[in-house]
Amino acid sequence: MTYCLGMTLKDGLVMLADTRTNAGVDNVAVMRKLHLYEMFADRAFAIASAGSLSTTQAALGLLEDGVEHPHSGRKEKLEDAPSLRHAAQLVGAALRQARDVASDKFGDPGVSFAASLLFGGRIGDDKHSLFLIYNAGNVIEAGEDTPFLQAGELKYGKPILDRELRHDTELGTAIKIGLISFDGTIRSNLAVAAPIDVAVLKAGEHGFALKRRIEADDDYWTGLNRQWADALDKACKAIKPPAWLDGARAGP
Amino acid sequence: MTYCLGMTLKDGLVMLADTRTNAGVDNVAVMRKLHLYEMFADRAFAIASAGSLSTTQAALGLLEDGVEHPHSGRKEKLEDAPSLRHAAQLVGAALRQARDVASDKFGDPGVSFAASLLFGGRIGDDKHSLFLIYNAGNVIEAGEDTPFLQAGELKYGKPILDRELRHDTELGTAIKIGLISFDGTIRSNLAVAAPIDVAVLKAGEHGFALKRRIEADDDYWTGLNRQWADALDKACKAIKPPAWLDGARAGP
Repeated sequence: MTYCLGMTLKDGLVMLADTRTNAGVDNVAVMRKLHLYEMFADRAFAIASAGSLSTTQAALGLLEDGVEHPHSGRKEKLEDAPSLRHAAQLVGAALRQARDVASDKFGDPGVSFAASLLFGGRIGDDKHSLFLIYNAGNVIEAGEDTPFLQAGELKYGKPILDRELRHDTELGTAIKIGLISFDGTIRSNLAVAAPIDVAVLKAGEHGFALKRRIEADDDYWTGLNRQWADALDKACKAIKPPAWLDGARAGP
Repeated sequence: MTYCLGMTLKDGLVMLADTRTNAGVDNVAVMRKLHLYEMFADRAFAIASAGSLSTTQAALGLLEDGVEHPHSGRKEKLEDAPSLRHAAQLVGAALRQARDVASDKFGDPGVSFAASLLFGGRIGDDKHSLFLIYNAGNVIEAGEDTPFLQAGELKYGKPILDRELRHDTELGTAIKIGLISFDGTIRSNLAVAAPIDVAVLKAGEHGFALKRRIEADDDYWTGLNRQWADALDKACKAIKPPAWLDGARAGP
């Protein structure tokens, strides 16, 4: 399993992904799932991958060679895409092709080649943006009302994002809220774990202002874990239990 | 969707279930999913149901008539079960039979008859206990280390339980923690909603000390919603953002 989170905000794009990969609970490794593309002068992309590692790695490989775009019907590369939506559709085509080839050639009952991707970035003078690429290859774009998208093990960490993240949240604060979201997820699912990769593309730029691997013993991360646990515990204790049982009938 | 939560604690058993049932988002109704059985002198049971309403209702009907127990091979009823585990296996057999009949007779692509149940209670002088009955009909029992079981839409509300609920948590506090778990779930999934039914079986008793429907405008519930939202917001704001971006390179 994996947890990937993308946030598209007024001030820029924030991408987070854990690095745990596992084939069963007895085969666990650290693997980069946040891939940054900033070798082009007029564009920068981040791809975060969840699901079958063989599918997502194959999809990234296909992208390098060029993939048939579902709308143009021509073989294209990310470096030529005229817009981020066009690029996202190309990434979707690569994912779909990788999955289909795997299923055709290596299909086995009980083996899943399913995967999904977060794709964010900026091309030319356009605003930065963020897309979720579904397993089928179709894409959706995040909007101002819900400025985040998730992939992988998303439910444990969603409530805090629903509550706290807004389109005008500052970048540093967004990283913090994102890490709180990871904190709850890591606590509840063994298959998500630090190190966590984080990248920030500031509005108007074509290179990542922050590229950082947060290790399990990182001072900020461990401090956040402790402060959040303490605060939740205090908040929970501060709410009085209901008095419903006090007036209930006594034992038999 | 549904969210059901059972907690088996030193002082007794707490069961919670929402009441929203939906067949698509345009067909939503209130339906009791927490069923209490306390008509017998030496035993009390609670069943909370998640999944296909037609399957769970059929399973409860089968239980009233008697079902073939998977171990004894005889047709049995809840009122005759010698232990709560034996009773849980009977409930599992009823669920499996209801699901199999539905699939055989009414099976259609895209229609799911899957369901799962929480089953808690007490028989004779035994300790109260709690079981999860899977869709396949097999059962697991909660233990002291993880004194809760969930069914339905379980992930949103799990982190707070992992953090705060212990086997020796007092009953009133357990109801409170359970409602915080519902609060997060309801916020993130439209298909889970108040009213919430709650029931408490105190240790050593054979009747429910508390049976209450918590309406959406219940004073305690709305107060808890507000206090928890405020506390999370404060806790989040109290954590400083990381300084990683401050030292990052300036714009291009």
